[in-house]
Amino acid sequence: MDLLAVGIGSVQGAAFAAQFRDRRLDLLGVAIVGIATGFGGGLLRDILLGQVPLALQSNWYLPVATVAALVGMLLQRLVHRLGVTLNILDAVTIGMFGALGTTKALALGLPAVPAVFVGAVAAVGGSILRDLLLNLPIAIMQVGSLYAVAAIVGSATLVVLDALGADVLLAGIVCVAVTFGVRVLALAFHWSLPEQRHLPT
Amino acid sequence: MDLLAVGIGSVQGAAFAAQFRDRRLDLLGVAIVGIATGFGGGLLRDILLGQVPLALQSNWYLPVATVAALVGMLLQRLVHRLGVTLNILDAVTIGMFGALGTTKALALGLPAVPAVFVGAVAAVGGSILRDLLLNLPIAIMQVGSLYAVAAIVGSATLVVLDALGADVLLAGIVCVAVTFGVRVLALAFHWSLPEQRHLPT
Amino acid sequence: MDLLAVGIGSVQGAAFAAQFRDRRLDLLGVAIVGIATGFGGGLLRDILLGQVPLALQSNWYLPVATVAALVGMLLQRLVHRLGVTLNILDAVTIGMFGALGTTKALALGLPAVPAVFVGAVAAVGGSILRDLLLNLPIAIMQVGSLYAVAAIVGSATLVVLDALGADVLLAGIVCVAVTFGVRVLALAFHWSLPEQRHLPT
Repeated sequence: MDLLAVGIGSVQGAAFAAQFRDRRLDLLGVAIVGIATGFGGGLLRDILLGQVPLALQSNWYLPVATVAALVGMLLQRLVHRLGVTLNILDAVTIGMFGALGTTKALALGLPAVPAVFVGAVAAVGGSILRDLLLNLPIAIMQVGSLYAVAAIVGSATLVVLDALGADVLLAGIVCVAVTFGVRVLALAFHWSLPEQRHLPT
Repeated sequence: MDLLAVGIGSVQGAAFAAQFRDRRLDLLGVAIVGIATGFGGGLLRDILLGQVPLALQSNWYLPVATVAALVGMLLQRLVHRLGVTLNILDAVTIGMFGALGTTKALALGLPAVPAVFVGAVAAVGGSILRDLLLNLPIAIMQVGSLYAVAAIVGSATLVVLDALGADVLLAGIVCVAVTFGVRVLALAFHWSLPEQRHLPT
Repeated sequence: MDLLAVGIGSVQGAAFAAQFRDRRLDLLGVAIVGIATGFGGGLLRDILLGQVPLALQSNWYLPVATVAALVGMLLQRLVHRLGVTLNILDAVTIGMFGALGTTKALALGLPAVPAVFVGAVAAVGGSILRDLLLNLPIAIMQVGSLYAVAAIVGSATLVVLDALGADVLLAGIVCVAVTFGVRVLALAFHWSLPEQRHLPT
C-alpha cells in the first residue's frame, strides 16, 4: 500500500517535471524529482521524528520510485490527459501519507498539534521538495485547491478520533476519507483559501 | 520566553512575505512562511543535534507561530512602519536563539567550534528557510548588516565563557547582550562585511 | 583524508560562487557556500542515518572549510584556470565521500539499495546544497558529465564487493577507483545521460 502511494507520487512528480523542457533535465534528474516527490514526505516525516527514514530500510522503495518516475516521464502526455483521474488517485495518496504520518507521530508520543503538523508534512512534503529542486514557487503556499488544507483537516480528524479512543485502523480510514473528500470537493467547486491581505493600518 | 521569540520571528516572517504580492500566497502560505521563520532555526538546530525538535514536543509552538504570522500579515504596514523597533526586538530574538542553541549543543557534548556553528544556525536558520521557501536569494549571505555575524560573535562569547567556567545563565545573558550589541551597532553605523573579491592571479 | 576532501570541496564551492558577482555575496556568504559544498554531503548523509553529523564532532572541519572557501574566493581565477586538474581532484573527492557514505550506511545495517543511495547523497549532496543556497538549477539533475552517475556506480560496486565478502578497505579503494574512472572517462569522451523525452502517446 505504502509502496503504491510512493509509486503514484513518483509518476506524478516526473510527469510534472517533464513540462519544464527548458531545464534540460537528464534521466537522472527526472528520477531524482520522482524520488523526491514520491517519498520526500516520508523522508521529512522521519527526519522530524528523529528516525532513520522507513524508505531507507527496505530495498524496494528506491527502485519502485525510480521506475515509476521513468514511466511518468515516458507517458507524460498520457499522464496529463488523465488529469482528473490522477488528481483523484493523488487525493487518496495524500490521505494515506497523512494518516501514516499522524499515526506514527502519535505512536512516538508527540502531542496532538505537532502530530497534525507531522501528518501534513508527510502528506505534502514530497510536493515541497519537488518544487525546491525545480526552483519553482512552492505550489502549496499559493492560492490553489486546498491541497495542504485537505491533509491538515484529515490529520486533525485522526487526532480527534484517537483522543476519543477510536481504533487506529478506523481512525486512519476516516482520515483518508476526510482528506479525499475535502480535496475532491475543493477541486469540483473551485474552493480555495483567500489570498493574503492586510488591514489598512 | 522561547515562545515569545518564536512569535516575534513569525510576525516578521509573515510581514516580510506580505511584500511579495506577485507570489499569490494564500493564508496557508503566509502561515508556512511565518512558522518557518519563527521556529526554523530551532528545527534545524535539533535536526543537526539528532533530537526530536523541541517545537514538536509541545502543543503551543504551532498555534502561536500561526497566529503571529496572520497578525503579521494583517498588520503588515504597521510592522514595516515599526521597522527600527522591530529590528531591535529581533536582535534580542537572535541573541536568545543563539544562546539556547549554543548551550544545547555544549550540553550534548559537542566541541567548541561546532557549538558556535549550531548556535549561529539556530539564530539565523529561520531566515534561511524563509528565503528558500520564497525562492529568494539567502539574505544572510549577501552584503548586509552583520545579522549572522552578530549571532556568531555572541555564540563564540558564550563558548569562551563556558570554557572559563562561567555560570550557564550568566554566559547566556552575556551572549544575548553581545549579539544585541553587535547587531544594533552594525545597524546604527552601517557596518558590513566586505563583498567577496579575488586576487588578480 | 576526509578533511582534505572537505577542503577541496570548499575551495571549489567558493570559486564557483565567486562567478556570480551580481549576487553581492559577502565574505560570510562565500564561507557559507564553501562550508555547504565541502561538508553538505556528509551532513545530509548523517541526517539520513539519524546520526549527529561527524563534521560537528570535531573542532577541525569548520575552520578548514572556512579557510578553504576564502582561499578559493581569493584565488578564483587560478582555480578556474586549473579547471581540469581540479576536476580530477574532485573525482577522487566524490569517490571518497561515496565510499565513506556507503560503508557507514552498511555498517549501520541499511540494506544494499539504500546504502548506494546514501553513498550517492554523500558524494553529491554538497553540490545540491550549494545550488539550493545560490538559487541555481541543481546541476546534477541536468544534462552533464555523469557526476552523480559516477558516484552511484562506485557506491554500487562497493555494495557488491561487500556482499561478496571483500575486505572493507579494499572495497572502498575499488569504489574510489571506479567513481574516478567513470567520471574522468565521461569528462574525456563527453559522455552524458540522454535528456528526458516522452513517448508520443
